Amino acid sequence: MHIERRDFLSTLSMAGAATLFSGNVLFGATRPKKDKLGIALVGLGYYSTDVLAPALQLTEKCQLVGIVTGTPAKAETWKAKYNIADKNIYNYKNFDQIANNPDIDIVYVVLPPSMHREFVVRAAKAGKHVFCEKPMAPSVADCLAMINACKSNNVKLAIGYRCQHDPNIQAYMKATKEGKFGKVKMVTSAAGYIDNRSNHWKQSKALGGGVMGDMGVYALQGARLATGEEPISVIAQASTTRPEIYKEVEETMMFMLDFPSGARAACQTSFGINMNYLQITYEKGWVRMEPQSGYKGNKGSMSDGSIIDFPLKNQQAKQMDEDCLAILNNTALIAPGEEGLRDIKVVEAIYKSVASGKNVKI
Amino acid sequence: MHIERRDFLSTLSMAGAATLFSGNVLFGATRPKKDKLGIALVGLGYYSTDVLAPALQLTEKCQLVGIVTGTPAKAETWKAKYNIADKNIYNYKNFDQIANNPDIDIVYVVLPPSMHREFVVRAAKAGKHVFCEKPMAPSVADCLAMINACKSNNVKLAIGYRCQHDPNIQAYMKATKEGKFGKVKMVTSAAGYIDNRSNHWKQSKALGGGVMGDMGVYALQGARLATGEEPISVIAQASTTRPEIYKEVEETMMFMLDFPSGARAACQTSFGINMNYLQITYEKGWVRMEPQSGYKGNKGSMSDGSIIDFPLKNQQAKQMDEDCLAILNNTALIAPGEEGLRDIKVVEAIYKSVASGKNVKI
Repeated sequence: MHIERRDFLSTLSMAGAATLFSGNVLFGATRPKKDKLGIALVGLGYYSTDVLAPALQLTEKCQLVGIVTGTPAKAETWKAKYNIADKNIYNYKNFDQIANNPDIDIVYVVLPPSMHREFVVRAAKAGKHVFCEKPMAPSVADCLAMINACKSNNVKLAIGYRCQHDPNIQAYMKATKEGKFGKVKMVTSAAGYIDNRSNHWKQSKALGGGVMGDMGVYALQGARLATGEEPISVIAQASTTRPEIYKEVEETMMFMLDFPSGARAACQTSFGINMNYLQITYEKGWVRMEPQSGYKGNKGSMSDGSIIDFPLKNQQAKQMDEDCLAILNNTALIAPGEEGLRDIKVVEAIYKSVASGKNVKI
Repeated sequence: MHIERRDFLSTLSMAGAATLFSGNVLFGATRPKKDKLGIALVGLGYYSTDVLAPALQLTEKCQLVGIVTGTPAKAETWKAKYNIADKNIYNYKNFDQIANNPDIDIVYVVLPPSMHREFVVRAAKAGKHVFCEKPMAPSVADCLAMINACKSNNVKLAIGYRCQHDPNIQAYMKATKEGKFGKVKMVTSAAGYIDNRSNHWKQSKALGGGVMGDMGVYALQGARLATGEEPISVIAQASTTRPEIYKEVEETMMFMLDFPSGARAACQTSFGINMNYLQITYEKGWVRMEPQSGYKGNKGSMSDGSIIDFPLKNQQAKQMDEDCLAILNNTALIAPGEEGLRDIKVVEAIYKSVASGKNVKI
């Protein structure tokens, strides 16, 4: 019987443990129990710098111990700011040596989407659990390769779907699941902001850009989480009002989804429009969220007068702590690789629909 | 010079007047000035019975003086209830004799849509001004024939677009027109209710049914009035969750519109879903209405904190009074036949898109 790392950590978290192997990393009696799992961030752009690193100062189950960056100057800044040991600083070339670093339990991939597959697979092969930012990858094939790499290396793969850890998002998911207002009939889901950059990966096709994978996934998740179903077909239209910036990828995407129950959704996403709301129409009531996918302050109301406005200290800290608990206790992740794949399946169908101008089965 | 009836009535409303002819109806010194224009309702279904007749008890510029019905029993009921003179009661066969009835200035066509063209044209030929319920007609060709008949008979044609007379709807139209929040970028517009009937014209293709012409026009108008523009293309999908009732026509229609400015709209309408809201996303703010097209209680809010909640005694009474004033003063109607035609042009394109599964230019 093969004992997975998560089984080990689960045991560890309950009591002491003997020497065990997990993947290709040695654990056990030779190493003291960790209070916090060690995380290395791969890619030190805005989201790592301004969101994840601060959140990691608030986490209880994990801590920032390593970084992986192609920019030496960034390494110096981070080293000083977060007291990161030299031996925990990697670049993209020597990254695979992370396999031999017991300080690092989790690799969090925060690179442009086109690089997710490579670094998730390399992290998995290094025996590290993986957190991967959204969109999971530019293609279903990439997602499957990432899921398989993590499975065959006995590591967990969590997608950075912070919203699914937010009690305000969970509130409407629960209303649907419990049939509080009967079946879902119609959903409107919008997510967009104004991105005026022209040289970011979000404007680059090669790097996995385009609004659909970025904000579009929030619009899509609004519909998927609202219905609790997977769409069976989609028709979509892409457009831009700023062709000088959005040369390679779409600025705006609108798409309509069919669900198996007969529920339907109209979704809108854009890099040129500030909008963020969700309206779920049920047989016997409604739920409305605005914003629906912010970092904080997601809130809403229901047709019975209920207010959705749960306190949330830090969304990303909660996400990482809950994902770490799933690793420690070997329980199901809230948003595993398979969840990321579900979205990318729809995203692929949306691009097919844009290309054909027709409805596409999923 | 041909003097139109509306010119005459305009004169009348300001002072006395000499003998004049308008269309084929004699007016003038032989007839005293009317305090209220006389209206005859054609078709005594729910909307005439429960909405328009009560509203006509509140109007200041017009009154219910005549009825046109194919059901003698209804004629008796209405005659008793509203004190209608025998000479002002017509059936569909002798309707054209209304030309000789000076009590009746306006014919309000409240029949199933497939009958609008015939009765609008007959009313125009009888020299009567015409109010016509929405949807204006099942086809653009019908609308054009109706507009031309009214023009050539020098009578006005108003579409029963009650919402355009509602100050709450006018409030967001004004915000757009004045550029209060910059240009419109995106609109979400939903209008639906649960219709469980199976034998109404709304479920009959031959009678001009289908949700698109009925509630769909409200969803469409939400987008048109919000942008202040006419759509240039549309992609649409029809569906039903109750094929046993919706055999001939669609229960639900979803459609996405492009506007010349680059603004876009996602619209939803259904006979199987209770929903009624409008969200307008501007460059620098938003307006949200819910409900957006009710008989009463339309209200909303704006991103600057403004509340849209104007008092409105009776929407249909205001509609009819304002349309009568346009007749009396020979001023522009708020919603003339041309406005009804604009919607039916889009409705035709929507059905073409459903048939082809593709985007259709308008």
